[in-house]
Amino acid sequence: MNHPTIESIQRAHQLIKPYVHQTPVLSSELLNQLFECQLFFKCENMQKAGAFKYRGATHAVLCLNGTEKLKGVATHSSGNHAAALAKAASLQGISAYIVMPKNAPKVKIEAVRAYGGIITFCEPTLQARELELQKVIEKTGAVLVHPYDNFNVICGQGTACLEIAEQMEVPDIIMAPVGGGGLLSGTAISAINIWPNITVIGAEPANANDAFQSFKSKKLIPVQNPNTIADGLRTSLSPLTFSIISKFVDDILPCSEKSIVEAMALIFKYLKIVVEPSSAVPLACIIENRDTFKEKKVAIILSGGNVDLADLPF
Amino acid sequence: MNHPTIESIQRAHQLIKPYVHQTPVLSSELLNQLFECQLFFKCENMQKAGAFKYRGATHAVLCLNGTEKLKGVATHSSGNHAAALAKAASLQGISAYIVMPKNAPKVKIEAVRAYGGIITFCEPTLQARELELQKVIEKTGAVLVHPYDNFNVICGQGTACLEIAEQMEVPDIIMAPVGGGGLLSGTAISAINIWPNITVIGAEPANANDAFQSFKSKKLIPVQNPNTIADGLRTSLSPLTFSIISKFVDDILPCSEKSIVEAMALIFKYLKIVVEPSSAVPLACIIENRDTFKEKKVAIILSGGNVDLADLPF
Repeated sequence: MNHPTIESIQRAHQLIKPYVHQTPVLSSELLNQLFECQLFFKCENMQKAGAFKYRGATHAVLCLNGTEKLKGVATHSSGNHAAALAKAASLQGISAYIVMPKNAPKVKIEAVRAYGGIITFCEPTLQARELELQKVIEKTGAVLVHPYDNFNVICGQGTACLEIAEQMEVPDIIMAPVGGGGLLSGTAISAINIWPNITVIGAEPANANDAFQSFKSKKLIPVQNPNTIADGLRTSLSPLTFSIISKFVDDILPCSEKSIVEAMALIFKYLKIVVEPSSAVPLACIIENRDTFKEKKVAIILSGGNVDLADLPF
Repeated sequence: MNHPTIESIQRAHQLIKPYVHQTPVLSSELLNQLFECQLFFKCENMQKAGAFKYRGATHAVLCLNGTEKLKGVATHSSGNHAAALAKAASLQGISAYIVMPKNAPKVKIEAVRAYGGIITFCEPTLQARELELQKVIEKTGAVLVHPYDNFNVICGQGTACLEIAEQMEVPDIIMAPVGGGGLLSGTAISAINIWPNITVIGAEPANANDAFQSFKSKKLIPVQNPNTIADGLRTSLSPLTFSIISKFVDDILPCSEKSIVEAMALIFKYLKIVVEPSSAVPLACIIENRDTFKEKKVAIILSGGNVDLADLPF
């Protein structure tokens, strides 16, 4: 399978740079004391459209040829990829057709609408989503931009790690949450090329542990009934992300729902930033594996900040 | 009255630089669209101890002579100055005696304790606080570090504006919330020396509008029964801050409680950061005075981020 290279990620970075934020890397002395390690948080919650997804979506849109640009892009997503693709496309004057389950969070539907996305609602099953998307693509001729099973999207997601390299000293460990695996894939390829001795860890809710199971058993096992507050991580690895993660990631750690909520509250309290539950999953894994991280320099990618503030879990 | 100068603020900046964060300046395209102006938010909510107060407290502590250092520092405060002074003092191995009203928010009491402050509780009246503080000072010989009626503290608060000058283009307007007036005083002196054409605006809850009344009537009028969610702004100007603000500030704008909550929610939602109500007061004034700010570049100091996350007003 054709994996992105560090060169393809660096090219993506040059392409998308004018359109994305170089998000800050934050630390908290009190958090570091609490965990007896040095934690560096890459704030993709402050990325445009509120998540790292804007990197991959922007790159995918910029890679379209002239004919494709006229037809537009399409995807199914209940979350950040939908908003990111809508925004990235609208900025280039391109139509974005988004299939969303009708029970998607109101805040995410509103975001897609605000960015000019053309929404089709469907039943909240993967099958219904894929069927509806197929119909939309047949009707419009739009180009499918899959949220993670897509070479150009993964290259875009890998650019966050390139920025981290300019913003902090050499880390011992880099962590990203893993849902579909796009962020973790791009991050792993960047990280091992920049820092040959780095340990790359994926962080995943135990209640949606398909990446953990697939990684350990060395075969792709889709998630069954993911029941996690981390709504961005309910998806399963794809053939492409599974292949990359198997090759370049050192470990996948699971964590409980309780630790996710605890980690989320710690991030709000000590970093003074708003993150969605998925962003808190790496810190939740640190809570449950303190010894692994003791005395280490750990870079953590906070994946997004799109959370319903009227419905915080703490 | 002896006002700080830009030179004294610059000296303070050199002194405190190794101990304080250079906090980021953030913007949001969506917020800018919403208000038809360019807003630049200086994130003192991400300052150590969670508020700009750490600048002034650190400077005051660093200005102590050897004998004073041995005796320690003292103040009365229900809020961020208490935590900031406790932390600044503890970092230099100096004792900090803090008088707090017994109804102070639990989160603030815990913060002072975590930073090693020695707390004395008193009745929640200004009189009781001053009386208790007097007793503590007599007993310990500690040096009073007033939260704002203090030359060195004001110099420290003015350093946030020096950083802003390095972080953004020339603003048309700079805004800071005004409670006791320390931040606004330091900011005004810095701002008019850096940008001679700047307009300096203080932002104040209408329900605690002593600065507005004092500024307009040109005499110091203390606040009566301040009933505002912006707990950091319930204090009154002091002779020193009133004198500085009268001379260097262009206007004081009041705002409603409703607008403060609305502004706070906008900051959480679009900037993805945690702020306390006081931080939202400048944006609340913009909500109520859109035409004044239209097409302008506005620097806003977000004063702090110490808010009880279980008790958000939205």
